[in-house]
Amino acid sequence: MAVELVETISELRGRVADRRSAGALGLVPTMGALHAGHASLIAEARRSCATVVASIFVNPLQFDRTDDLASYPRPLEADLDMCADLGVDMVFAPSVPEMYPGPARCAVDVGRLADHLCGSGRPGHFRGVATVVLKLFQIIQPDVAFFGEKDAQQLAIVRRMVADFNVPVRVVGVPTVRETDGLALSSRNRRMTPAERHLAPALYRVLLDVQARVRAGVPDTETIVTRAAAGLPADERLRLEYLALVDPDECQPVDRVTGPVIAAGALWVGSTRLIDNVRCVPQGQV
Amino acid sequence: MAVELVETISELRGRVADRRSAGALGLVPTMGALHAGHASLIAEARRSCATVVASIFVNPLQFDRTDDLASYPRPLEADLDMCADLGVDMVFAPSVPEMYPGPARCAVDVGRLADHLCGSGRPGHFRGVATVVLKLFQIIQPDVAFFGEKDAQQLAIVRRMVADFNVPVRVVGVPTVRETDGLALSSRNRRMTPAERHLAPALYRVLLDVQARVRAGVPDTETIVTRAAAGLPADERLRLEYLALVDPDECQPVDRVTGPVIAAGALWVGSTRLIDNVRCVPQGQV
Repeated sequence: MAVELVETISELRGRVADRRSAGALGLVPTMGALHAGHASLIAEARRSCATVVASIFVNPLQFDRTDDLASYPRPLEADLDMCADLGVDMVFAPSVPEMYPGPARCAVDVGRLADHLCGSGRPGHFRGVATVVLKLFQIIQPDVAFFGEKDAQQLAIVRRMVADFNVPVRVVGVPTVRETDGLALSSRNRRMTPAERHLAPALYRVLLDVQARVRAGVPDTETIVTRAAAGLPADERLRLEYLALVDPDECQPVDRVTGPVIAAGALWVGSTRLIDNVRCVPQGQV
Repeated sequence: MAVELVETISELRGRVADRRSAGALGLVPTMGALHAGHASLIAEARRSCATVVASIFVNPLQFDRTDDLASYPRPLEADLDMCADLGVDMVFAPSVPEMYPGPARCAVDVGRLADHLCGSGRPGHFRGVATVVLKLFQIIQPDVAFFGEKDAQQLAIVRRMVADFNVPVRVVGVPTVRETDGLALSSRNRRMTPAERHLAPALYRVLLDVQARVRAGVPDTETIVTRAAAGLPADERLRLEYLALVDPDECQPVDRVTGPVIAAGALWVGSTRLIDNVRCVPQGQV
């Protein structure tokens, strides 16, 4: 069955209103270039909601580098086919002028939540993410919205924004989907050469190493991170941007591990920047 | 008829949901200490909406001075009586912990809209206003919200936030209500001594002088403002914080008047800070 493609806010609002009486409305916000990770979000939405809307919008506000924005893949036809196959009811794919008709003056300030991890290397990124997610929530007014745990800081920020602003949306985090060698699925993976792709699972292996050290009871973050990072292959194409242990709610660095933490890393593989994270729990804790 | 008093977000949401099918839901957000200016907002809401909710919340986030927050009047019983008399269906009067259960991390950044007028003298004020208004909009989900034109910069910022974030609320500005001597109604008026109250209409007279000069075709803001300000009574209890001409949409100062502008002023009368504004249009324009 063909999926409905909606490109304007007013049309989207009308169509969503027609379906609201059918039951819960689920939103899967994406930037397109859909892969099995997105399929997992959509499947979760399909399982629990009467109506599933996927949005596809490459949000300029969240790109700190114009070359990254320009080269971000936009395979709309393939995305629509995939949405149809997965039973999405409606795809909202607005243009940039539809979302930003003039210079925006108001934005969501996410405060300290953007101080670390990807926030420090990508100034303005999470402000842009939070702002566009708030806009999508206001336009679509979903009951539930689905986000991948792969983007842990993004998920934490969206949860916090929803709580701080009392947005009437339930936010659901969906586990990261991985290739058989452990690489987390990402729209950016397809940019790598075969040789780079071969190196890419190193990030997940480092994170698993961190996870094992935390589980074994090593308390000192500095020790854990230094030893785990030493396991990265010595290859000039690999550059570790960060490897950190942070608390799950606010993504603030922890010096000593006393409870569950998120181990998060960003690794450059050639000119492709990969991120990933795993939850780490000291043995005996939940 | 008694007005329903609701103090928690969850109860408010339930009660509002019950009434939504009756027709348009109107919100009049206030900080209490209601006067005839608020009555005018409520009357406008009552005229056009099936259900009228008034919120009463002295928002700590928008106070830049703790003494001002502490001394802000909170006559809840009188406010409830007035709401009942005016036919308000429901008053939402949450506690501070109900609105801010923990440290808020996310806030609405209003950008350049807060650079001038009250924004420069009250750092963080409009960020606090925009954040609490966004929260109230998310909690109550009104179809229409009513704001006084007396707070021109606040009205411009709320309009802009609603547009920038696609909030599905129609914002209605309601004309300023004045005493017979021209003083704009404000909850702060009751703080003045009789002698200060006698001086207070000077602000409106200065603004009318600005309006007359604009109408007469004087183009230069500096000239207009200097000459009008010279008409203030020489009294040590009066201190003009600002007197400015700004564009109505973004409250940015204009050097030369080429179209409709807002003349806005803030005047200290003793220890009471009064604000007011009038729309000014060069003769022959609309």
